[in-house]
Amino acid sequence: MDMIQSAAQAKKASITLASVSSEQKNHALKTVADYLINNIDKIVRANEEDIQRSKKENLPETLIKRLKFDGKKIRDVVDGINSLINLDDPIGKKLMATELDEALNLYKISCPIGVIGIIFESRPDALVQISTLCLKSGNAVLLKGGSEAMQTNRILAELIQKATDAAGIGTDWIHLLETRDDVNKMLKLDRYIDLLIPRGSNEFVQYIMDNSRIPVLGHADGICHCYVDKDADLEMAVDIVNDSKTQYVSVCNATETLLVHSEVANRFLPKFKEVIQESNVQLRGCENTRKIIDVTVASERDWKTEYLDYILSIKVVNSLEEAIEHINTYGSGHTDSIITENKEIAQKFMDLVDSANVFWNCSTRFSDGFRFGFGAEVGISTNKIHARGPVGLDGLTIYKYKLIGNGHIVSDYAEHRRKFTHKPIA
Amino acid sequence: MDMIQSAAQAKKASITLASVSSEQKNHALKTVADYLINNIDKIVRANEEDIQRSKKENLPETLIKRLKFDGKKIRDVVDGINSLINLDDPIGKKLMATELDEALNLYKISCPIGVIGIIFESRPDALVQISTLCLKSGNAVLLKGGSEAMQTNRILAELIQKATDAAGIGTDWIHLLETRDDVNKMLKLDRYIDLLIPRGSNEFVQYIMDNSRIPVLGHADGICHCYVDKDADLEMAVDIVNDSKTQYVSVCNATETLLVHSEVANRFLPKFKEVIQESNVQLRGCENTRKIIDVTVASERDWKTEYLDYILSIKVVNSLEEAIEHINTYGSGHTDSIITENKEIAQKFMDLVDSANVFWNCSTRFSDGFRFGFGAEVGISTNKIHARGPVGLDGLTIYKYKLIGNGHIVSDYAEHRRKFTHKPIA
Repeated sequence: MDMIQSAAQAKKASITLASVSSEQKNHALKTVADYLINNIDKIVRANEEDIQRSKKENLPETLIKRLKFDGKKIRDVVDGINSLINLDDPIGKKLMATELDEALNLYKISCPIGVIGIIFESRPDALVQISTLCLKSGNAVLLKGGSEAMQTNRILAELIQKATDAAGIGTDWIHLLETRDDVNKMLKLDRYIDLLIPRGSNEFVQYIMDNSRIPVLGHADGICHCYVDKDADLEMAVDIVNDSKTQYVSVCNATETLLVHSEVANRFLPKFKEVIQESNVQLRGCENTRKIIDVTVASERDWKTEYLDYILSIKVVNSLEEAIEHINTYGSGHTDSIITENKEIAQKFMDLVDSANVFWNCSTRFSDGFRFGFGAEVGISTNKIHARGPVGLDGLTIYKYKLIGNGHIVSDYAEHRRKFTHKPIA
Repeated sequence: MDMIQSAAQAKKASITLASVSSEQKNHALKTVADYLINNIDKIVRANEEDIQRSKKENLPETLIKRLKFDGKKIRDVVDGINSLINLDDPIGKKLMATELDEALNLYKISCPIGVIGIIFESRPDALVQISTLCLKSGNAVLLKGGSEAMQTNRILAELIQKATDAAGIGTDWIHLLETRDDVNKMLKLDRYIDLLIPRGSNEFVQYIMDNSRIPVLGHADGICHCYVDKDADLEMAVDIVNDSKTQYVSVCNATETLLVHSEVANRFLPKFKEVIQESNVQLRGCENTRKIIDVTVASERDWKTEYLDYILSIKVVNSLEEAIEHINTYGSGHTDSIITENKEIAQKFMDLVDSANVFWNCSTRFSDGFRFGFGAEVGISTNKIHARGPVGLDGLTIYKYKLIGNGHIVSDYAEHRRKFTHKPIA
């Protein structure tokens, strides 16, 4: 089907999907889970084709690892669907209720956004995760995966369509796009698509943000910082920075730059170097860092770099203000942590650092929807509107106002025959 | 000052403004109100210059009317500031609190968005309203008014700057832009500006939306509908449609198209025509309408037109579904009202019409921040993300996550030494 037709069909389907009951949506999710489990062999076979082809095409090993979708990963994804079923329906919630006047009642009710465009690279689990999140929240979805996962994505999309069709929701709410040309068309379809969620490398997300007028939920960079304050517990600081850097290096919430107050740099840095060396982290430091420990020189470019690797840049700062200024200048508004025993300093840091996640005495690696207890994660957003930080199902919702009257007209109020009461409704 | 410098300065000021106390912000607002009242003569004189110049330049009468900013209008604006002072501070609210583990507590706290760019046409009251809303919500602001109001805007911006400087908040948080070139530069400054709020004609708002990557809060069109259902109380319907069309024609929530169910069209339309004729409304109808009442012919173009005038297009539909389909196809997602005594039909209409405001048995003219009881209005949004419908102060806020630990690291959880508790904090 033509891309534009698919989008128009999704838009139409989104209207009815908005009013499908929680029971029916959960039944459809259960059916999707069943179809996946009953077709593990078929999925694995399709995935193996993708892997063989990718190997022949000499795609990098890391990509092939992400592409792999075996029985264990399928069962993990199905576990995810089962927890999703248990979450509250985010749709139809009464967010506010006000009596404007006698028998004139206003309700603010959560509803789906409409049509979500998802663009993801190799990992096929993303297809299942995001499309089931969309289903739970009543949104239609256009999916574009990496071409290296073509066969896997086709069978997954087909199974999801069949399952929701069997569950009475039809197939029009979900469409799989396959060509690069489709993506470029999708980026222009702001009349049908309400939100884009790109998952993948930062260059990739940046490309999407730069080439569409449709709002984008997500983040390009994750340049996260730890700041070791002059009042830090230095042992705690070593552990937190070590965890923030090395617990998992290739993720957006791993720390890339360490800031250290000059008053404690002499005591902290040698101790820290000893520990972090065990993980073979390459350290790059500013001039003052290099006076204390022997590390490679860090340039301006380092402060702006998301390494996603065993590399850490270090800067000695002379004040809390300098640390905040550095983070707000070079950071990406993702996650930044201060280590200090001083409550006032910690509060100032958390107030003035302009990031989605501002932490005190804990690892930057905590910024994550599952760790935050959201149950399901749409992604992590560095947006300043709509949804910021780890985004749960709520990020796929908006609201509408329902006003219920009994013949009420505005001229009665404009001409002072009636007055608004504006009372909250319990 | 150079536009880009102004934006950079505003960005910097926004960081500190984010943590200014409610008391200090309210004190600054009070000072702004005082400065305006104490300088009424000066403002009126500047405004008269603008009016004289505009008359000489033969600007249209309607524009000159909007441009006028006299003592009464200044006092109205000051009343607005005083009510704003009495509203709750939208910043620093605890939106969620969760214990992730012992002594690891997560807080979701409302905070300002950052830097707001406001672009408005002739009305100088918009300058004061929006900049005080920004101040109350801790946002820095870049303002661009119509060049016809140049002198008025200059004195207003100067007074606001002086007042907030006297109140200890400084002047960097607010900048007045003056040239069209500045606006075009502003539209490109997504690294400093977080949200644009254009107020003015729909062509103008459309231009802004089409030419910036910065999120836009607002609406281009207001193509609102009334649908008179087969189960409508026809007398009530006459009153509601009449009010929706004629109470104030030049506003976004006035009705532009009337849809009537074929089963009641014969009885409703002649009665309705009799009443609406008193306001000299030009009626344009579909073929079936013209079989019942004598009106001009409506073309496809009429269904897409926001008249903002004493014109109404009318279409006879054969079902609720056809009415919904028409609204979702030709409407602008602003405000649509059904008139019916049938609860089930009303609910279906409110669920399936994809608009910010869906009304039952009342006038479309109610969709307005003041009528909704929000106390202050940023504007009316047809966005599907962030803020929809009439937007109060909350629309100028976002949130950040503060996580407070005591040396917590992720590897303890990854390696199962510790488990998350995920308990809500009372």
